[in-house]
Amino acid sequence: MAVPSRRQTRSPLQVRLAESVLSPGGWFATLDEFHRWLSEAANRTYMNVRKVPLTGLSGWEVERHTGNIRHRTGKFFSVEGLDVHVPDRPVSHWSQPIINQPEIGILGILVKEIDGVLHCLMQAKHEPGNHNGLQLSPTVQATRSNYTRVHRGRPVPYLDYFLDTSGHEVIADIRQSEQGAWFYRKRNRNMVVEIAGEIEVADGFCWLTLGQLHTLMSVPDLVNMDARTVLACMPFSGAELTSVLATALATAPATAPAAALAMTPAAASAAALAMTPAAASAAALAMTQAATLATAPAATPAGEADGEFRAALVRSCDPGEAGPHTMGEVLSWITDMRTRTDPQVRLIPLDEVRGWRRTDELISHETGRYFDVVGVSVEAGGREVGRWDQPMIEPFGTGVIAFLVGEIDGVLHALVHARVEPGYADVVELGPTVQCTPENYDHLPAGARPPFLDEVLEAGPERVRFETILSEEGGRFHNARNRYLIVHTDGAAGIDHPEYRWLSVSQLGELLRHSFYLNIQARSLLFCLTSLTGLTGLTGLTGLTRLISLTTTTPAPLAAR
Amino acid sequence: MAVPSRRQTRSPLQVRLAESVLSPGGWFATLDEFHRWLSEAANRTYMNVRKVPLTGLSGWEVERHTGNIRHRTGKFFSVEGLDVHVPDRPVSHWSQPIINQPEIGILGILVKEIDGVLHCLMQAKHEPGNHNGLQLSPTVQATRSNYTRVHRGRPVPYLDYFLDTSGHEVIADIRQSEQGAWFYRKRNRNMVVEIAGEIEVADGFCWLTLGQLHTLMSVPDLVNMDARTVLACMPFSGAELTSVLATALATAPATAPAAALAMTPAAASAAALAMTPAAASAAALAMTQAATLATAPAATPAGEADGEFRAALVRSCDPGEAGPHTMGEVLSWITDMRTRTDPQVRLIPLDEVRGWRRTDELISHETGRYFDVVGVSVEAGGREVGRWDQPMIEPFGTGVIAFLVGEIDGVLHALVHARVEPGYADVVELGPTVQCTPENYDHLPAGARPPFLDEVLEAGPERVRFETILSEEGGRFHNARNRYLIVHTDGAAGIDHPEYRWLSVSQLGELLRHSFYLNIQARSLLFCLTSLTGLTGLTGLTGLTRLISLTTTTPAPLAAR
Repeated sequence: MAVPSRRQTRSPLQVRLAESVLSPGGWFATLDEFHRWLSEAANRTYMNVRKVPLTGLSGWEVERHTGNIRHRTGKFFSVEGLDVHVPDRPVSHWSQPIINQPEIGILGILVKEIDGVLHCLMQAKHEPGNHNGLQLSPTVQATRSNYTRVHRGRPVPYLDYFLDTSGHEVIADIRQSEQGAWFYRKRNRNMVVEIAGEIEVADGFCWLTLGQLHTLMSVPDLVNMDARTVLACMPFSGAELTSVLATALATAPATAPAAALAMTPAAASAAALAMTPAAASAAALAMTQAATLATAPAATPAGEADGEFRAALVRSCDPGEAGPHTMGEVLSWITDMRTRTDPQVRLIPLDEVRGWRRTDELISHETGRYFDVVGVSVEAGGREVGRWDQPMIEPFGTGVIAFLVGEIDGVLHALVHARVEPGYADVVELGPTVQCTPENYDHLPAGARPPFLDEVLEAGPERVRFETILSEEGGRFHNARNRYLIVHTDGAAGIDHPEYRWLSVSQLGELLRHSFYLNIQARSLLFCLTSLTGLTGLTGLTGLTRLISLTTTTPAPLAAR
Repeated sequence: MAVPSRRQTRSPLQVRLAESVLSPGGWFATLDEFHRWLSEAANRTYMNVRKVPLTGLSGWEVERHTGNIRHRTGKFFSVEGLDVHVPDRPVSHWSQPIINQPEIGILGILVKEIDGVLHCLMQAKHEPGNHNGLQLSPTVQATRSNYTRVHRGRPVPYLDYFLDTSGHEVIADIRQSEQGAWFYRKRNRNMVVEIAGEIEVADGFCWLTLGQLHTLMSVPDLVNMDARTVLACMPFSGAELTSVLATALATAPATAPAAALAMTPAAASAAALAMTPAAASAAALAMTQAATLATAPAATPAGEADGEFRAALVRSCDPGEAGPHTMGEVLSWITDMRTRTDPQVRLIPLDEVRGWRRTDELISHETGRYFDVVGVSVEAGGREVGRWDQPMIEPFGTGVIAFLVGEIDGVLHALVHARVEPGYADVVELGPTVQCTPENYDHLPAGARPPFLDEVLEAGPERVRFETILSEEGGRFHNARNRYLIVHTDGAAGIDHPEYRWLSVSQLGELLRHSFYLNIQARSLLFCLTSLTGLTGLTGLTGLTRLISLTTTTPAPLAAR
């Protein structure tokens, strides 16, 4: 028959992904150059955001009878109420405001080989909720209202590559959920498309290798949520990928402070320029200290432990490695959790939520916890639209999002939690080991305190493999920041809880080929974890990261270490 | 660490599945014995079903203000209205009655090795909608109301093996949808659990090999819908499975009328005893003729073509065989269809459906097409409850459910259709090439006529690889029967349609590990297709099947051949 079957004409994708991980530079020869570029971009653009009363948002109206807040066009999103019953939980019934945004947007990253190495086309982008100005976002980040140009802004650059992929290679293309605590059944299409031909690099865009992006994951509030979820959806799994990474690991000096080398003090201060002045000076100080730290002698026992950790992580990317659960068992467990749990969730008028106070200014919980619904007025240059108002969710406190990871038969596994969030389309998704804002639990019974939270908060620094403060979606959430942590435990064997399972990186990757298995926090955190496979999986970086985190964040809400 | 990794202690599951496919008998040495057992079971049980007015159903009430029909306990299911907008379709807006059954039931089959061969524990079961009495159903077929014993019936046998699988091997466990045209977001948990120890065989239950079940797929209205969907969810894919089946194929006489050998005239008449008298005599006649036919000389050109077809089908079970689309491309296509299609579906009061007539007796469409909602009064012996009333959906006409299949580079592929049905939880599922009741389209514009319907209806007998009339769920649907067809085309290369894709058996199997990719009709039909891999994939059987189908059904609604 005439239908042609597929023929491979170059290295398999997994090999090319691994090579991109191992590449310290290309389009930007060093991250120094990237940071200079970023600070220049920051100088050419601005976004002024000020809080305004919810009742006075231009273009928005409060619906009579319901109190729902909606755009006058009926597009974009609305703020409504949600009534939730989840049986057999410490808190089994509540109501809350929630964002209802039924349209499916596109989050897309274009990739392309430059000098034989895969690069990702990233955009330096302002969002009103970003506390620090520019962050690195995907090539395209567009709601349907956005790209059908309801707000008559400029067209979205590169969008056509995602609306019509013919002639290009689709590397990932899957709908995924977003925050189920703040969004009602929000879904975005996560796409990675490889293009072969030439393409112009528009103002504010740049090409980065996976290795460079991995290193940049240690910079606070730089790689934005939309970029993280799309990067996580790349198929980062396979025996060949493992083989390339393992070979590099075996030949690399075990404890070279690669990340510090990739970011000179000059780069650090350039990066700081893209941040707000307060954060910037703290970050610059931290990075200078870290660079000093990085000149310390390399071969230490901690370095050896790092090498073992990284080898176990790389093995975890190989689907041929056996673990405690087969994929069949994992899928059966998910089916069981989704069948047993029967939350009753329904949209209600925003006026009918209980336990919340509403003023002209904002909506907040009676306890001051969880989040506020606030209004902002935005004035921007260098973005699609120059001026707009909108409601946003402003969460209370800085959250903790953490994986406990441990070796099982020499293969690293992460402990995932089958979570119920009211906004999920399908009852349960797998989340991180810990995902919470600790203060939200202070007034609740002890049984409500999240499992493993204390183990994460009390982990010694030698166990913390990754720690960075990262921002959530700046288009809907105002100053929503979480401390992302990867915490190494040697107690994996002893942990057995019906709502938790140990999964390998390749198993998580297999689930990520399908919709609604891994929640947005787990996807972000998985990318944090895989960022340790390449140049950056080393103590030098961890120290640098920790210093930056500790100096650039608001006073730490975590329990004292 | 101490968490044990998995160790294989016996043949891989795929080898054991292939061996079960190739086993003509075990617990029943021949199908003759099975049919005797079935007719004895039919003699010991009965179910009398008579139509009664919808307004007079004992235990059910018509809700004031909405007209919805619901059980007085609030359990089981209700009949409500659905309002549907699907943009850009020939018929883009309609409303209809629909069954709302939010609970997730369990459809489970226990499997066990008997003399080293996997057997499935099947139940001979009456359902009020069955036109022929007993059908073969899964080990367990239970709604939550059912197994929480809302109707205070007897406990469901074997249910505990599915509620608590610890200590047993879970072979499949996945929630799947059911008819999206008649059910609002109905989902059932499809489970296959292998037990190691001894187990008592309760009255009305029996053990059958996959090979026996494959052969029985050619008997009209015997293997019920719930059994078919669970059997389809078994992981029927893998290089080793292909290898075992291919070896058997290479050594078997190419055209042995295996099915006919497996069903002697005595068995045929025994099988007929389980049917209603009218169907039975026609079937018995057909089977006698078929058995005669089966004694015809074996080596024919048609026989060689069969061997090639079967070899291509067996190769299709090997995920290592390349096809026109990678799994990544298939998943991207599904994502695209689910993103582009934006149906607006909402439950409305049953009283507000338009175009439907409601009397005390029943609800029917103004044109008489689609389906009626009817009431039945049931009296049963040998089932969990002796007596009850319930509403049911009674469809109009006999549907056509068909796969076009064709070889691409020597590997059989089936043409699947990305279908929108209003009751799907996730917009689009993959259905058969053709799924319709042809008369429902007579009054609609030509553009509404389903693609490929004529190719299926006009296929010559040498192209029809499978054809059997099978029943849909007899617990909710009254006399819902469809003609299931596998039609071989050599035009696969020329068929290219944005809503259709050619997938291999192993690709369909991969999708079946996850929820809501393959609709109930495609799952049934996939099991029909894989039933041709073993003893039955031969012309002798096709001839037999066709004879039975043609004689036991109501006058054929298909276009004349």
